[in-house]
Parts: sequence; C-alpha cells; structure tokens
Amino acid sequence: MWRKELNKKKTNVSASGLQVIPLGGLEQIGMNITAFRYEDSIIVVDCGLSFPDDDMLGIDLVIPDITYLKNNIEKIKGFVITHGHEDHIGALPYVLKEIGVPIYATRLTMGIIEHKLEEHGLIKKVRRKVVKFGQSINLGDFRVEFIRTNHSIVDAAALAIYSPAGIVVHTGDFKVDYTPVFGDPIDLQRFGEIGKKGVLALMCDSTNAERPGFTASERTVGRTFNALFEEHSNSRIIVATFASNVDRVQQIINTAYKFGRKVVVEGRSMVNIIDIAQKLECIKIPDNTLVDIDQLKNYPDNQTVIITTGSQGESMAALSRMASGQHKKVSIRPGDTIIFSSHPIPGNEKAVTNIINDLLVRGADVIFQDVHVSGHACQEDIKLIYTLVRPKYAIPVHGEYKHLIAQKNIAMGLGMDKDDIFIIKSGDVLELREEEAKVVGKVPVGTILVDGLGVGDVGNVVLRDRQRLAEDGIVIVVFGIDRDNAQLVSGPSIVSRGFVYVRESDELIDDATDLVLDEVTEALDRNITDWNKLKNIVKDVLSDFIWKKTKRRPMILPIIMDSNY
Amino acid sequence: MWRKELNKKKTNVSASGLQVIPLGGLEQIGMNITAFRYEDSIIVVDCGLSFPDDDMLGIDLVIPDITYLKNNIEKIKGFVITHGHEDHIGALPYVLKEIGVPIYATRLTMGIIEHKLEEHGLIKKVRRKVVKFGQSINLGDFRVEFIRTNHSIVDAAALAIYSPAGIVVHTGDFKVDYTPVFGDPIDLQRFGEIGKKGVLALMCDSTNAERPGFTASERTVGRTFNALFEEHSNSRIIVATFASNVDRVQQIINTAYKFGRKVVVEGRSMVNIIDIAQKLECIKIPDNTLVDIDQLKNYPDNQTVIITTGSQGESMAALSRMASGQHKKVSIRPGDTIIFSSHPIPGNEKAVTNIINDLLVRGADVIFQDVHVSGHACQEDIKLIYTLVRPKYAIPVHGEYKHLIAQKNIAMGLGMDKDDIFIIKSGDVLELREEEAKVVGKVPVGTILVDGLGVGDVGNVVLRDRQRLAEDGIVIVVFGIDRDNAQLVSGPSIVSRGFVYVRESDELIDDATDLVLDEVTEALDRNITDWNKLKNIVKDVLSDFIWKKTKRRPMILPIIMDSNY
Repeated sequence: MWRKELNKKKTNVSASGLQVIPLGGLEQIGMNITAFRYEDSIIVVDCGLSFPDDDMLGIDLVIPDITYLKNNIEKIKGFVITHGHEDHIGALPYVLKEIGVPIYATRLTMGIIEHKLEEHGLIKKVRRKVVKFGQSINLGDFRVEFIRTNHSIVDAAALAIYSPAGIVVHTGDFKVDYTPVFGDPIDLQRFGEIGKKGVLALMCDSTNAERPGFTASERTVGRTFNALFEEHSNSRIIVATFASNVDRVQQIINTAYKFGRKVVVEGRSMVNIIDIAQKLECIKIPDNTLVDIDQLKNYPDNQTVIITTGSQGESMAALSRMASGQHKKVSIRPGDTIIFSSHPIPGNEKAVTNIINDLLVRGADVIFQDVHVSGHACQEDIKLIYTLVRPKYAIPVHGEYKHLIAQKNIAMGLGMDKDDIFIIKSGDVLELREEEAKVVGKVPVGTILVDGLGVGDVGNVVLRDRQRLAEDGIVIVVFGIDRDNAQLVSGPSIVSRGFVYVRESDELIDDATDLVLDEVTEALDRNITDWNKLKNIVKDVLSDFIWKKTKRRPMILPIIMDSNY
Repeated sequence: MWRKELNKKKTNVSASGLQVIPLGGLEQIGMNITAFRYEDSIIVVDCGLSFPDDDMLGIDLVIPDITYLKNNIEKIKGFVITHGHEDHIGALPYVLKEIGVPIYATRLTMGIIEHKLEEHGLIKKVRRKVVKFGQSINLGDFRVEFIRTNHSIVDAAALAIYSPAGIVVHTGDFKVDYTPVFGDPIDLQRFGEIGKKGVLALMCDSTNAERPGFTASERTVGRTFNALFEEHSNSRIIVATFASNVDRVQQIINTAYKFGRKVVVEGRSMVNIIDIAQKLECIKIPDNTLVDIDQLKNYPDNQTVIITTGSQGESMAALSRMASGQHKKVSIRPGDTIIFSSHPIPGNEKAVTNIINDLLVRGADVIFQDVHVSGHACQEDIKLIYTLVRPKYAIPVHGEYKHLIAQKNIAMGLGMDKDDIFIIKSGDVLELREEEAKVVGKVPVGTILVDGLGVGDVGNVVLRDRQRLAEDGIVIVVFGIDRDNAQLVSGPSIVSRGFVYVRESDELIDDATDLVLDEVTEALDRNITDWNKLKNIVKDVLSDFIWKKTKRRPMILPIIMDSNY
C-alpha cells in the first residue's frame, strides 16, 4: 500500500545502520528494555521488571541482565522512559546502581521514578530531567521527541527517535482516547506529521492486537460508576482497581463527590501514587472528600467509598485481607457492594475468582464485569497508528508471541510486506537502514532473579532445589564416622521435612534407618571411608527404598560428621 | 409463581425428613459426592476427586473424607453415578477400598469406572449394575430413576430420587442439546412428567449460571470443523480437546473422513476412553480411518489429523510435549494447523497461553477461539429445567460459590421465595419435608490428599513445610555434643538447599557457622544440654542473622548428634 510511495521518497541516507536491541520483554511479559545504537551512541528506552513465573519459587522480582549495557557503558547517553508502570520502570533502581546515566521522562513518570530512587537511596546520585510533550532531547547522535499518548496511567509518551539512519517511532504502551479524563488526547497530528517526513520503523504496542475494534474511552467507566453508585445508594461501596490508574481513581472520586460520599484510599502502593499525582496536580480531589481510614466509623455506610488495591487477587493486598477477614480496619459485611474496576491479567484469573467467592460468602454484592476499559490499543487503533506513521519497517513490541504475530497480521492486512515486519527476540541486534533491515547479531540477555536482598544469588540450581523440595520435601540422614578406624560413631539419624507426617510413618523412618545403618556398616567394613562414596551409597539405597514404599522422590541429603574432632 | 400451586397439591406426607448431605464439592470444585438419607437408608450420588490447588505442593489428587459414610456403613445401599467425569467418579477406587457397596451407572459411565477399578485391582471386588435411561433401581427406602440428559460426555444422567418424604431431582452435569451428536436429546418430557407429580427439591448444575442465553448444540462444533478443514486443506491438522469428550472426537473423525484424512489419537487418557467408547458402540469410526502414530510418516501432511490431549496446558500431556519439542513421535513444523477445541478451565489460562506461544514460535498456525461449546446449561436452560420441574425447594449444586449465588438469583427471578433456596456447605445436613426444610446438623467432611501411594499421610504440617521450603529453602545445622561433659564434639556444619547458591555465598555460611559455634559453646558453658533448648537457641540466632543479611526466612533445622554412642 504505502510501500511504493516511501521507496520513492528516500529518508536520510547513512553509511551506518541504526541498531535496535531489545534486552528483555519479548519472551517474558514485563521487563521492557530496549537499546538503540547508532555508531558510538546508545540510548535505552524503558527499564522494567517482571513478576516471577509460577515455577520461580520464592522469587520476588525478575530484572534484565544488562551485560550488554555494562560492556558499552561509555556509549550510553541515558534512559528514556515512556511511562510509569512497573514493567517499564521497575528495574531502574537495580540497573542505575550499575550504570549511572541520566533519566528522561515526563512529569508523573518521573515522580514515580523519584519515589523509587528515594526508597533505594539513589535520589541524589541519579541525574534526571523532566521532559514536556513535544519537547526533544539530544542524546549523542540521537534526538528523542516525546509525543503525548493515552494509557491507563497519566503522562504516557510515545517516542520519535531521530538518528542519522532514520526515524523510529516507539508508541510505548498506548490507547487512542478522544476524551481522556486528564490532559489531552493522543497527539495524532504529530504522528501524522512525522509519518509524512518518512519513518524508518514503527515499534507498536501489541497487547490488544488480537482484539477487534476500538478501545473505549476511559471516560465511559465514569458513567458506569455513576450508574452503579445510583443503584447501590444504600450500601457501602468498595472499589478495587490498579494502584497506578490515577484517572480511574479520579473518576471514582468524582462520582463519590457527586453522591456525597467520603473517600478512603487503602493500600500502600495506591496511597503512594495518589500522593505523587496530587503533588504534581495530575489528580483533582475536592476538599473534604478524602478521609483517613480511621474516620470511616464516623460516617454511615452509604456515605463512604473505599478505593483499594488488590483487584488482581494479590494475596497481600488490602482487598485480599478484607476478603479473608484479616484486614485490621475494614470488615466486609452483608450489604457491602464491591466493584472490581479491573480485568484479571492472564494468570491471575483464579486468584481473583477466589476473592470474589470469599466476598460473596461474607454476604457482599460483588460486581466484576464491565467496570473497566483497557489501556491498550485494539486492532482498529493499531491500524490508525500504522496509517498515520506509514513506516518502512514494523517491529511489533510489548506482547506475548501470539500478540506480536497478531500485530504482524494487522500490518500485512494493511499491505505491508511480510519481510518488512520483524518479530525479533530479546538479544537480537536488528540493524535498520533505508535499503535493508536484518538481524546482524546477538548480545547476551537473560533474567536476574531478586529474592529479598539478594540480586542474582538465586539461579537455576537453587530454583531446581526449591522445586524438588516443594514437590516431595527433604529427607536428611546424618551420621558420624571415625575415619581412621572406619567406624560409625553416631547415627544414622533420619529427619524429614515436607515428606510425610512422621508420627504416622514411624515405621517407614525406622526401616529406612535400619537400611542405612546396614549399608553404611557394610561399606565401612569394606573400608570405604570416602565421604562422597558413602553419601552416594546412602542416597541410592534410600531413594530406591522411599520410591518403592511411597512413589515419591524427596531430596535425599546425607550429612557426614567427622568425629576426629 | 408456582409456589402457591404446589402448596395446594401436597406431595407425600411422612414423619421423617429426607436428608441431603453434600460430603464435598461445594467449597472445592470437583470432588462431587452427596449422601441422601431417609431413616436407615443411605444412597450416595457420585464420588469425584479434585485436582490440587496451587498451594497443595506435590499433591497428585484430592479425595473426600468419608468418615460419615464409614460411620454409617450398614445403611449405605449403593453409589449412584451421574456420568463418567473425574470430578464425579475419580475417588471411587479409593472410597470403594473402604466401603464395599454396589455401583449403579449408565453404560459408558460404567465402562470408564470399570477401567479404573481394573487399574486398582478392584474389578472383582465391587458389585456393579449398568442402568438404562428410564430404568429405576430400588435402594432401601429409595427408588432412583435415571433420566437421559446431554453433557460433554456420552451417557450422562439426571436422577429422580424417590423417597417417602418426596422426590428430589438431581440434574447431574447437563446441557440441553436438541441435536446431540450421539443418542437422544435430554428427556425433557420426563422432567415435565415428574414435575407434574410434585417435586420436593431440585439440585441443579450451576456451572454456567452466570452466562446468559442458551448453550449451543455440540453439533455446531462439527460445522466449525468442516469449515476449518476446508480452509486448512493443505496442512497437517492437530486438534486438542478433552480426553473424555467422545462426541467431539466423533465429530473430528467425521470431518477427517469427509476430507479423506487419516486420524491418529494421541495421549493415554484419550486412547483409553475412545477404546472403551468403541467397545460400547458410543462412537462410530469408519474402517481404515484410525492409524497408528508410527504410520503417520506414510501419509502426506494434508491427509492426516492428530487428535490429542493437552488442551488445558497440562505439562505432561501430548500437546505440551509437542509444543516444547519433547514429543517422541510428533514435531511441530511451520505450516501445521493446531486447533484448540476447548476453553481453558479457570486457573489454566496461563498454561494454555504458554503452549499457544510455543506452538506459534515453531511456525504453526494456532486456532483457539470459537471451536468449542460448553457441556453445561446456561441461564435460559436452567430456567427451562426449573419450569419443567417446579420444585418446592432449590439446592443449587456444582459450582463455585458465585455460581451457586447466580443460580439462586435465577430461581428468585422465576418467582421462588429466597427462603426456599438453599446454598449449603459440605457437611451440612439439610432436612427436607413438605412443610419445612432446614439445616439440622453437620457431619464431618474434609479433604484427603493423595501423594504418590500415600493417601492422607500429607497433612497441613507437611504442606506448610513444603511451602516454606519452596519459598526460601532450608538451612541445616548439624553438631555433635557429649552431653555428659557438656562438650561440643563435632560441627557445627551448615548445609543449605534452595536457599542461596553457596559457592557465591561462602562468607555468609562461614559467618553463620562461627555464630552458631559461639552460641552453642556459650550455652554448653552455661551447662545447657537439653536438646530442645539448644535447638531453639540455634534456630533463633540463625534465623535473625539470615533475615538481617538476606531478608529471607529459610527453614532452619538444627540436628544434634549425641556422641555417647
């Protein structure tokens, strides 16, 4: 379709190519971080974290391996951040400890980043610049322009990345909202204007690329709140939503104010973000509307609203604690109306359903359908952006593989050649030139697991051990030997955890102990005193015995004490 | 609405009430088992298992606690089974080992049960009777009539349970299918006829009570297969569906035959059920259509279909192994078309999505929407059954709490009084009489965890230990003491698993060892030789130290060896 036209109208010609290097996010949802390199200049767009998969037992967070950035530290001009969601900013405190380069972001995004930097004691060490929409910043060979978009968080930006090799437009996470709650609609004119100049590549959000149609305006949810508050005018109302969705909170507050209700904001992350948003004037709260949770008791139920975290069923969030009766200040009562203003993120469906059931058991009325709109562009919105930008190449980003493929299909439907659409992987070095684009190499990428204070000290060995322990527990065999005389001097004692309830299974443990005693004695008689050999003998005989008796495979851990003290 | 009418026309009057006692299934999905008691007669409807929740680490299956049945064994007349799904029959082999009473079921249901009994070596020990639709069996004071319904498995039955206190209609799991693939439509006439007699209580499937409208006929999926096979006539087709959905397999085979494709059935559970269904003539497979998986290579791709298990993302199922490249006989190739003829069961969404992504990465075309219909009645179907049966009381069954509430709302919408609708819990004894119905007591209920060969030997203590081990691993401290002389004679040695990768953390372990050495030595100097006291001292000091250093809480396990051997 527009291919021919572009070929005629050449963009900048340059000897060097522009390299696009995703360092995370394309195999694992979250952890969005992409390096752009032109000769000796590197800029990094976003720096997010992921939440652990189910098999990453005990892990708190997952952050990207930034070996590539560390190896090229002198070239890096800065981090350019599209918006303030965890999957785009969450790894910054960890990464900035290793790479001290400046950060560029819009107002609310920077407010949220600064809060993180304070928590990590980094606020004084990191240079920061708040960028306005329409403003450009020069970073080495790059110029980066921030373009206003809409999303489920205020102040989201798309980026036009100008390089001598051409322009890349990166949408960030976006939707097209003609009637946003806060600020202006997405700057479609500017997308068109840049498109007219000639865009080398478009990197577009794929999250909703499987969904037909248009994404509804955030403002439609406000009308739903009005209707629900009208209908439930006699009960206390609790609304659960995403902590960072300032516009949603704004609309709940607007409706509450209209119906003369006082508002309590509950849940640490939401309190923090609303606090930041208020300071930056991204939310307008009428006087005397917010009250402290301790004041709730001073108002009748039908004059209060609680806005809370936990809409994804997170077990430690305020709503979970209310549902399970463990919240210190709020007990769910028959007659309460609970509204989920959210949709479960894939993987959270069951946790959300469990909470809904718990709330219903407590007699509450629970509303969990059609009180939410997505923050991401659907198919027709994606077509709009492609048609405004008319890129030579397309690089679908931000989605599972199936979403990237869905966007590829949209682009092909618009007439793009399939060879001009690149589904790339983390670590791929995609080199773009007007004449040609191709993957020219691979840089090291990976995930670093954060567990408590430990960053990267839990690897595959530890995770495998945790999985094994989780599955069937551990059986520990301790015995002491006098190596010089090849004598057993203490034990064997068998202790188990997570295997079977021992009082019920004394016979099993007794038999196992006898077996180990026989085997070890026999081995020592044959003058085997090498610890590793003894351990292996014990492991083999015991795991066979336990498998036969129980069809389980606990971890077997022999510990030998040397008694030549 | 129909309440008044019923009050005029009295059903049987009896001194005793009919007790309905769900022994499982109402808090945990699956594990359907309900006792009906009238004086000295007890019958049990269904005997299912549940699959473990995410927090039941290492558990294979969950079966109901049948203490109530064991305590009343002389009264039990038999198990009456509605259909052959695991959540209705899966616990039979375990329960029949303790309660040797006869089983009554329809043809295919019994075929599947018999296969299980054979596997458990019980086939010769259990009396069984295959019941035809329309047939009644006398069981003590009860008579039970099997009524034909439709469901996602052939030969599903509803039950009319006749007792001196009145009739209870139990729908089993059902849908209303006017054009079923196999056999006749649900016997709506009989529901109406029994309703005319006067029904005391209706126990109706709630699974889809939240969904408006009607459930589409199974036959509509056949038309979808025809269209998809037409569209993908050049590629190999792999269809994943539920192992037990014989009608679905029948339709895939019909379409394959129509398009001249050979069919391979892959996945142990599906092979078993299709085998049983073929023997019982519940499925019709044209000659020379089924081929062995090893023969696949003898046919061009576009002349084959593989029907496989794994549509729920089960990690050990055939489709998962194909998606991850670990299947021995089938490698996914670019150009393959993979059809998910299923919908993810809540909780499986992420696993299914992961497999879809893996298949797409291998270049396959994946179709996962609109190739499935539910086996459960939607709102309008539920209204139909209520209107045919017109019960005095309603007892919504088979669903999460939110589904039971949704059915309650449907019944109230039809004019039933809310006090006549009973949302009961497992263990509740609901006593029904024409004049009155109420919960009159509670019997012991619960879940028994099956892990390998162990039935019930994993309880809360073991599960809590597994969770702790999974989260942060274990740190074991071993030391030997000479109690008589209050001397440390060996150790302390610290060994950890699943905690941190030790080679990286030697300093941590060294410091911890020094700390324990100091504490134990000091305690012994103070002549503390009591093992429990010493263990507690070690536990406290070590868990504090580790928390401070790592913000983790591994299980701390001190083991003391007594060296007075």
